[in-house]
Amino acid sequence: MAFESKIKTIEWVNNASKMIDQTILPYEFKTVEVTTTEGMYFAIKDMIVRGAPAIGIAGAHGVALSALELKDKNLSYSEFISELEKKGEYLKSSRPTAVNLQWAVDKQLELAKKEEMPVGKLVDLLIQNAVKMENEDIEINKKMGDYGAEVVPKGATILTHCNAGALATVGYGTALGVIRSAYAKDNTIKVFADETRPRQQGARLTTWELTQDGIPTTLITDGMCSYFMSKGMINMVVVGADRIAANGDTANKIGTYTVAISAKYHNVPFYIAAPLSTIDISIKSGKEIPIEERSHEEVTHINGKRVCAEGVNIINPGFDVTPHELISGIITEKGILRPDFTESIRKAFGK
Amino acid sequence: MAFESKIKTIEWVNNASKMIDQTILPYEFKTVEVTTTEGMYFAIKDMIVRGAPAIGIAGAHGVALSALELKDKNLSYSEFISELEKKGEYLKSSRPTAVNLQWAVDKQLELAKKEEMPVGKLVDLLIQNAVKMENEDIEINKKMGDYGAEVVPKGATILTHCNAGALATVGYGTALGVIRSAYAKDNTIKVFADETRPRQQGARLTTWELTQDGIPTTLITDGMCSYFMSKGMINMVVVGADRIAANGDTANKIGTYTVAISAKYHNVPFYIAAPLSTIDISIKSGKEIPIEERSHEEVTHINGKRVCAEGVNIINPGFDVTPHELISGIITEKGILRPDFTESIRKAFGK
Repeated sequence: MAFESKIKTIEWVNNASKMIDQTILPYEFKTVEVTTTEGMYFAIKDMIVRGAPAIGIAGAHGVALSALELKDKNLSYSEFISELEKKGEYLKSSRPTAVNLQWAVDKQLELAKKEEMPVGKLVDLLIQNAVKMENEDIEINKKMGDYGAEVVPKGATILTHCNAGALATVGYGTALGVIRSAYAKDNTIKVFADETRPRQQGARLTTWELTQDGIPTTLITDGMCSYFMSKGMINMVVVGADRIAANGDTANKIGTYTVAISAKYHNVPFYIAAPLSTIDISIKSGKEIPIEERSHEEVTHINGKRVCAEGVNIINPGFDVTPHELISGIITEKGILRPDFTESIRKAFGK
Repeated sequence: MAFESKIKTIEWVNNASKMIDQTILPYEFKTVEVTTTEGMYFAIKDMIVRGAPAIGIAGAHGVALSALELKDKNLSYSEFISELEKKGEYLKSSRPTAVNLQWAVDKQLELAKKEEMPVGKLVDLLIQNAVKMENEDIEINKKMGDYGAEVVPKGATILTHCNAGALATVGYGTALGVIRSAYAKDNTIKVFADETRPRQQGARLTTWELTQDGIPTTLITDGMCSYFMSKGMINMVVVGADRIAANGDTANKIGTYTVAISAKYHNVPFYIAAPLSTIDISIKSGKEIPIEERSHEEVTHINGKRVCAEGVNIINPGFDVTPHELISGIITEKGILRPDFTESIRKAFGK
């Protein structure tokens, strides 16, 4: 059963990528239109658009924008491909951890390289494919939601970290997609949302999108999860993922690993919800996932105001890796993968 | 070896309790003078002064202020005691979790009730005792610092949560006292300070006081501790306490329990630093410790600006309880108590 969310995070409209500006939510709701490769690079890097599946689609749109930029340059097919590949590499370098961005850009590039054709026709094809990937993203999320809803206990309170919602995808959500589907079946379920410092995606985005949909949501600070678990007030954890290794180790927003350890300590089931495009079977374990180091200002300042003394050092990893042994299951569009993940992931990829 | 800190958090000066206003640090350094019982009630409740040992001394000062208020009312000794007890109860009700406040107010009331004397003389005695307790607090912290420094590995990076520093005491600190003493012996040690949402005592106060003393400090957000522990970058955790039960279960600032679980998972030693006055031997376990529920605005707003959507629910427990099995040792002025804590605490109290 699917629950319709009104939120459309990223959408191809009139040769532009129209997206919700997530840096100013929930204070202000504004969409921006990105029309160049460089504009898309910065929209991803500065987190105007964020969330692994959403930045995948942003990458696919980005390649379509690159193709439009190259269209009138009188390039041969092979020159066009060579220039398109450079722009694709540039787009992929905007954020290193989420694999969906690489995956989506590579899908577009593969399509472009598949067979030689007139450049004008190829540009149209890349645009059509970007729109197709956009639509598929929602369908995939709804399938994940249906699978995930099956493991949500009746009346459960579900903790989530960061925002793996409609705002992190094209429009339904991975972890929050599971919650939406569960809520459509059982409107007694409730959500606890971690604030998710430093960038407060939980406080700013998850509370915004769940209250928009009328799903009861309690905001907690990141340190509180263990307290509520010890009181039996959290029955399940569902989070998204930025990259999953072949053994199930999962990179997600910094702080996820801390929640996973606490869930294990309290015997609370801990699920990842992510499309297969988030699984990087080329890497054996989480040790190979590059962790993005982000700006110090994200920690030292909140809403432009300094929140700590001068002279303090900062280290700001954007992600952490939850080892597979802390994960109860990975909810995908092909069903819920269970441990041993090396085996279940291999099967899901038909290998 | 003791390291002198320049910070004097709370001090009896000219019939007033002079204290650093901790709500505006590190943005502004300002002291306020509290001269009435009611003023002290709100100074504690609104966290102008905070930290278990510091609010203990604030309570002792508070009783001295109450005595001054009653001095010129022509009361008999027994009328004076009866009124003083009411004011003492009022002061104790300002914050429920930290036992030091009750302990210090009760110490003053016991002294007042010990033997009948002229009211004027009794007022002087209560003031003298408040000043004595103030001085003893620093001495106790330095003793704890010396004991604690012995278990800090050479060149260690020590994680602390909230602020159990000079600002949480009269002037040296419990957890940060251990760090000061360790740093005086080995200036290669480093500190990681948890931000400590919602009130950011780590970001605002711990970074301020450690950088004042030139101790290298890295600020991290509350969810990051596990990431750094998994990288071997944290060798020890030391935190303060608001109340310790007879079995060693320890109430401290919300988020402490999450750090303790993570420390256990990574085999990182986790220490509590607290004076014996923080141990409440009248309660068997942490289940009996009342947890203060604080204002929702602490979670929804930072520096006066809303950080989440409207319509979200909030639960804001000010403290959590770390079960004794996660604690490596309790550093006190009588040495380091080790498991079995029921036994070691009993011995420390000479029972």
